[in-house]
Amino acid sequence: MKEILLFASMIMVINVSCAQSPPKSIMHKPAPEASPENITAKYGEIAKQLLERGLRDCDAYKFLTELCEKAPHRLSGSEGAAKAVELTRKMMADLGFENVHLEKIMVPHWERGEEECWIVPAASKMPQTMKLHTLAVCALGGSIATPDNGIQAEVIEVKNFEQLRSLGDKAEGKIVFFNRPMDPSKFNTFEAYGGAVDQRGRGAIEAAKVGAVAVLVRSMTLRIDDVPHTGVMHYADTIRKIPAAAISTVHANQLSDLLSKQKSATVHLKLTPKFLPDAESANVVGQITGSEKPNEIIVLGGHLDAWDKGHGAHDDGAGCMQAIEALNLLKKIGVKPKRTIRAVMFMNEENGTRGGNAYPVAPERKGETHIAAFESDAGGHAPRGFNVKGDSTLLTRVLRWKPLFDMLDAGKINIGYAGVDIDPLVNTGVPGFGLVPENHRYFDYHHSDNDTIDKVNPRELEMGAIVAALLGYLISEEGL
Amino acid sequence: MKEILLFASMIMVINVSCAQSPPKSIMHKPAPEASPENITAKYGEIAKQLLERGLRDCDAYKFLTELCEKAPHRLSGSEGAAKAVELTRKMMADLGFENVHLEKIMVPHWERGEEECWIVPAASKMPQTMKLHTLAVCALGGSIATPDNGIQAEVIEVKNFEQLRSLGDKAEGKIVFFNRPMDPSKFNTFEAYGGAVDQRGRGAIEAAKVGAVAVLVRSMTLRIDDVPHTGVMHYADTIRKIPAAAISTVHANQLSDLLSKQKSATVHLKLTPKFLPDAESANVVGQITGSEKPNEIIVLGGHLDAWDKGHGAHDDGAGCMQAIEALNLLKKIGVKPKRTIRAVMFMNEENGTRGGNAYPVAPERKGETHIAAFESDAGGHAPRGFNVKGDSTLLTRVLRWKPLFDMLDAGKINIGYAGVDIDPLVNTGVPGFGLVPENHRYFDYHHSDNDTIDKVNPRELEMGAIVAALLGYLISEEGL
Repeated sequence: MKEILLFASMIMVINVSCAQSPPKSIMHKPAPEASPENITAKYGEIAKQLLERGLRDCDAYKFLTELCEKAPHRLSGSEGAAKAVELTRKMMADLGFENVHLEKIMVPHWERGEEECWIVPAASKMPQTMKLHTLAVCALGGSIATPDNGIQAEVIEVKNFEQLRSLGDKAEGKIVFFNRPMDPSKFNTFEAYGGAVDQRGRGAIEAAKVGAVAVLVRSMTLRIDDVPHTGVMHYADTIRKIPAAAISTVHANQLSDLLSKQKSATVHLKLTPKFLPDAESANVVGQITGSEKPNEIIVLGGHLDAWDKGHGAHDDGAGCMQAIEALNLLKKIGVKPKRTIRAVMFMNEENGTRGGNAYPVAPERKGETHIAAFESDAGGHAPRGFNVKGDSTLLTRVLRWKPLFDMLDAGKINIGYAGVDIDPLVNTGVPGFGLVPENHRYFDYHHSDNDTIDKVNPRELEMGAIVAALLGYLISEEGL
Repeated sequence: MKEILLFASMIMVINVSCAQSPPKSIMHKPAPEASPENITAKYGEIAKQLLERGLRDCDAYKFLTELCEKAPHRLSGSEGAAKAVELTRKMMADLGFENVHLEKIMVPHWERGEEECWIVPAASKMPQTMKLHTLAVCALGGSIATPDNGIQAEVIEVKNFEQLRSLGDKAEGKIVFFNRPMDPSKFNTFEAYGGAVDQRGRGAIEAAKVGAVAVLVRSMTLRIDDVPHTGVMHYADTIRKIPAAAISTVHANQLSDLLSKQKSATVHLKLTPKFLPDAESANVVGQITGSEKPNEIIVLGGHLDAWDKGHGAHDDGAGCMQAIEALNLLKKIGVKPKRTIRAVMFMNEENGTRGGNAYPVAPERKGETHIAAFESDAGGHAPRGFNVKGDSTLLTRVLRWKPLFDMLDAGKINIGYAGVDIDPLVNTGVPGFGLVPENHRYFDYHHSDNDTIDKVNPRELEMGAIVAALLGYLISEEGL
């Protein structure tokens, strides 16, 4: 690729608007003043300013770098989470946001402790090519501890709950190894995740029902590496609780090969996580107060808590910093929105959603009317568009703005899920919006030591902030 | 982000087709049998099979890994280029392609040699904060050598040719330092590249005109790091030739700061590149021969040569392996195209385009009619769509297929540049197509030691191959 591609790019840019204009089919009843042509004439310059200023400065990446350096581990109740709350409060205050404050909540406080897992050598007669001792594991979020000396038991592999139930008493006293991979043939990696994550979420419950003593769950990633991926797991009040850990995909494959060759393997597993008393934490709020309708609020949010692996760069430091950068960007280009645009750092998405549940009913909501809520919690990659949680009338109204988002290559606007943290607000009837970024790489990093700042591209991250800023501004000016 | 996003993804998928249906405006005269609805009914299942099989196996990444491991440096005329020719010939033969052969060409053979550059300490009275001695540089492709002892001269910084010409005799005997960055505010990084690359391409010519003894050119990247990016530079027959090197962006910034603080700096630059006699090399060709019209050819291509920095993973190992994988994928799902779909590994794109120029006039073209040429040479990131080099009638015909490419999130189809290697063929009137991938990260790697296999995501790379396979198949069945 050399100089000549310059012409390519120019022609591409010139032609974006023509071939990307919105389908006529969804434009049957726009208000005359709100046709796509008028919308582009009215807001095209603002969109251009947001795009150019955002990409020139890429401040979202500077903010995210600071968050990842100063509060890399931010699981609810932890010291890192407290640091992140203070850091983002100060960040918003220093940027000149208004009404910057904390909204206190109590959150669960689970700590990981030590982790060790290996194949018990005595039981292991593996061929030279299959030398394997230590297994890379990590406790699933919310797991109980093993006994102090760990658990030593035979491993039994299953691919799903049906197969588990069909085992009869064969799983009694054993460690159940859930090894159904995410389906790589799915184009949408969130769909592949959704098709496998029941093993992580309910595996301990189902395994305990058939007498198992612990579970090992294949990490929820499409990548084959030696990094275990954590994530929340659940217990049921009426079912015996057993420890649960994620195992890396490399070691899951090796353990599966070993079981198929050797028919049996005994594993030692020790986990020492513990639940401490609920801790005080907070949602962090800051805003640009609307010039005409200050009590009509548009929320832009992400979740500030992150698993205690990696730095939570993509999940969801990215979404939080994009919310802050969206407001920062609107201030930098000097626009004054009619309605209030608010950045909210929600606490405790990963293991409780306490922040998301508290926000709509907090005393601070008195006298406020929320007209929209946007969340970015699908990673900091280049946006493709956003989901709209609402009816077809809402979608039709939003699609009037498609030409502006096509300018950002983010014109894929569909009915869909908006976000975990804003869901309680959306369930009160507030229109919800969820950023949809490119997702092929997301689960390579998700909930693991791979989720670090070096996996984030400053421009791709910034594009999400630019989309959030533009959407927030359009809603503030046009309503919904 | 947790389980609940599963629903998001499902709904997203369901809705892709509705909101992504093509603009009515460009569907005024489709043949009745070729309406988007009919096209989807006719080819939707093939598209789905290509997508699912491609993502399940991700063979393009396996091929690219082998190329990067066995022939990382593939500059024209080098031993690595010869290895890459044999490797891809064997790869296509082993995959069962037909008519696998080499088409011999003579190519330029330039070798880099040693590189050293530092600020001459005696001339340097820099503050403690600006300690700087060695500068990270690399010879630009095609540069002549410095004298054996190198060049020692004062540096003069300019941002563009106008500023250079305005210097009068001030540049006489000096090293001209071209330091105009790529414009980060451009959304399309190829446009940012196009706006800065004249310094690399013509800098030595313009600097020699005003009496300079050498040029240092700021690396063509948006990233600030200490890795210099090479690329082709040109001389003019009538203008004295002077050595030219790229300098890393970190050191370009430091040198610029030093010049502004200290008013002058003297630099030592030594380069020992040399031109050897032209060497024999080849374009590498393989195909699936058409079942009904074997002499009607659809070319899918990339360029096999790469700069002698990094592994040429994105530029353009990606495009070559996508072409091979496109054919491999069509064979794996068992379709037999009516027309011939051919993979071509073009040689010498980076510093001569000899392969691209030779292909249309090669003796092997006798009796062949080319009906389309596709090139992937913009990196192995997730595709957004493709450019069509042709008139609006051709664009209209191709846009009938948009719903199928929207299924792959690659529905951005515009008139635009197709590719350097296929340009000579396209200039004979053959419709051209150029893949348009996500491009924010591309110039972080381009022509530098950063361009290695670990920067490529297997799924994103595969998506480009899937788009190539689908487009090739549609043209083979429907014509243009």
